[in-house]
Amino acid sequence: MTSNFTITPLSTALRTALQDKIDQKTKPPGSLGRLEAVALQAGLVQNTLTPTVSKPAIIVFAGDHGIAADGLVNPFPQAVTAQMVYNFLQGGAAINVFCRQHQLQLTVVDAGVNHDFAPHPLLKDRKMGMGTQNFLHMPAMSLDQCKLAMQAGAEEVKLLHENGCNVIGFGEMGIGNTSAAALLMSHFTRLPVAECTGAGTGSNAQQLVQKQAILQQVVAKHASPASPEQALATFGGFEIAMICGAIQQAAALQMLIVIDGFIVTAALLAAVNMQPAVKDYCVFAHCSEEKGHKAMLEHLGVTPLLQIDMRLGEGTGAALAIPLIQSAVAFLEEMASFNSAQVSNRTI
Amino acid sequence: MTSNFTITPLSTALRTALQDKIDQKTKPPGSLGRLEAVALQAGLVQNTLTPTVSKPAIIVFAGDHGIAADGLVNPFPQAVTAQMVYNFLQGGAAINVFCRQHQLQLTVVDAGVNHDFAPHPLLKDRKMGMGTQNFLHMPAMSLDQCKLAMQAGAEEVKLLHENGCNVIGFGEMGIGNTSAAALLMSHFTRLPVAECTGAGTGSNAQQLVQKQAILQQVVAKHASPASPEQALATFGGFEIAMICGAIQQAAALQMLIVIDGFIVTAALLAAVNMQPAVKDYCVFAHCSEEKGHKAMLEHLGVTPLLQIDMRLGEGTGAALAIPLIQSAVAFLEEMASFNSAQVSNRTI
Repeated sequence: MTSNFTITPLSTALRTALQDKIDQKTKPPGSLGRLEAVALQAGLVQNTLTPTVSKPAIIVFAGDHGIAADGLVNPFPQAVTAQMVYNFLQGGAAINVFCRQHQLQLTVVDAGVNHDFAPHPLLKDRKMGMGTQNFLHMPAMSLDQCKLAMQAGAEEVKLLHENGCNVIGFGEMGIGNTSAAALLMSHFTRLPVAECTGAGTGSNAQQLVQKQAILQQVVAKHASPASPEQALATFGGFEIAMICGAIQQAAALQMLIVIDGFIVTAALLAAVNMQPAVKDYCVFAHCSEEKGHKAMLEHLGVTPLLQIDMRLGEGTGAALAIPLIQSAVAFLEEMASFNSAQVSNRTI
Repeated sequence: MTSNFTITPLSTALRTALQDKIDQKTKPPGSLGRLEAVALQAGLVQNTLTPTVSKPAIIVFAGDHGIAADGLVNPFPQAVTAQMVYNFLQGGAAINVFCRQHQLQLTVVDAGVNHDFAPHPLLKDRKMGMGTQNFLHMPAMSLDQCKLAMQAGAEEVKLLHENGCNVIGFGEMGIGNTSAAALLMSHFTRLPVAECTGAGTGSNAQQLVQKQAILQQVVAKHASPASPEQALATFGGFEIAMICGAIQQAAALQMLIVIDGFIVTAALLAAVNMQPAVKDYCVFAHCSEEKGHKAMLEHLGVTPLLQIDMRLGEGTGAALAIPLIQSAVAFLEEMASFNSAQVSNRTI
């Protein structure tokens, strides 16, 4: 199986013209720091000197994990995944608050939660099952399931894009999914699994040692997967596979992609190994406090916008970073130039 | 002369109740990172379990500097200060863009620009002179002028507070003011002036060496000032003195103060040396790329919210950080609790 998205490497045709436009704004050159890099990237992604942020959106994918059923790797019970989905639907979670604050459209997707939800106008049903298999014993899902999950994630992105969205972030909910993300990280970065395994929702020291030991058993159980898709099927979760597909679809549609924390970056690692060009479409929202995220970002050679010690997931980091992307696009569009404002440009 | 603001140290009466409220929100404990600390601080500053962000505002103080008249420390000519004030009034500067984006009220104050402005509805006339004296030869201003400038800054804060503002950031414009800020930093931190002196708007390596040499001459010229007010008068600028007074007034009115970059933090160093309790009212917006700012923040023992390599001034860092403060207040107000959302709180 190969990933079937057509992702164009960024055209650099406008790079010089974009940089000139940035440098003619009434400010010392470079003084808007990372915002200047984001403005340049937005222009390249949209292939225009006047990039926009249109109908920015967050999709939260929720799924359960076989490994979490018996509580060996997770201090919160598996039932919390479904409980938090209800919380999203009622508007009471952190991601709801931040999406309301910044007028981000929020989509909640049941990717495979171990709970039967009644139909709800805010919940998209993409259920792949009542949670993945326990990768301590067998792959989390089949290759076919993995492919279907990636396609489902991609379809959710298409729907938003058709509606005018050009900037998108992804979030996740899934008790146990830091274990899946740690395994994916270890596979794709070649770092020992212990270095990739952190406290998740809040394991204490003893729980963390147990989590690391179990994940080492998982690695020992499976022969090294032969392809990125195989790795995603073996170690992933339904929500992670959907995010992996969603990222590729967003890049194929030349959208700016806002990468959240540890789990979403694990999905990106899989996506980058399927389609290296996706990385150029990504803005990295924040560095999570979850152990491993910093090393993931270093592996990708990228610097995130925010470093405010968050480790919540749900796409909360992405939601908080989108205003900075809007600031980048806004200064490029709205600031006066040295000429237009009659400001002297270093004549001494 | 002593500073005549009455600043109450924060009451800690509500600390435990605020922390409990934060910890009952539907998220792993601590997982909102720095936003949790800001929410706690906002509650303590406003002495309530339900802090708000009301009519957030930025005041930009502009002033000229005697040291800049002959271009020895500044790659941009002094005339740029006035040109940029016009740019602020026309809405074309970066701070205008970010204030529009986040609906922040913007006040522009002529603290002492070397230019006669015609009356303008958006420009507050607090002119202390046509720029400071050149501190290479004499103190930048007299103690009386310094006191009047602090009072003028304080009055601008009072006006906003009377109108309902409870969160305020300060910005500055003044060709040459990184030199003033470097001298204040060196005085208050006891670090050698060369370690406090950076490229400002963009000195090249040779210009930077010259700037450092000149500032060392300034230090040698003046006996160590005997009080924080004397230091502010000797090395400051009119805009810096106004910010120093504005900060103290904002703390006296129990407002949350958003500290911007290198120059505003220099004004804060003076304020903290007059009134140590002001620091508790401050949120640190960002770490500027201007050399010295990081060491200033370390001297104060604080961590800023944003580290995105900006070094523009104008209050731009403060403007970009205010949405994060709004996020902190919003999660505290709007998120469901484990009880209200019927989410299990770690029962394994």
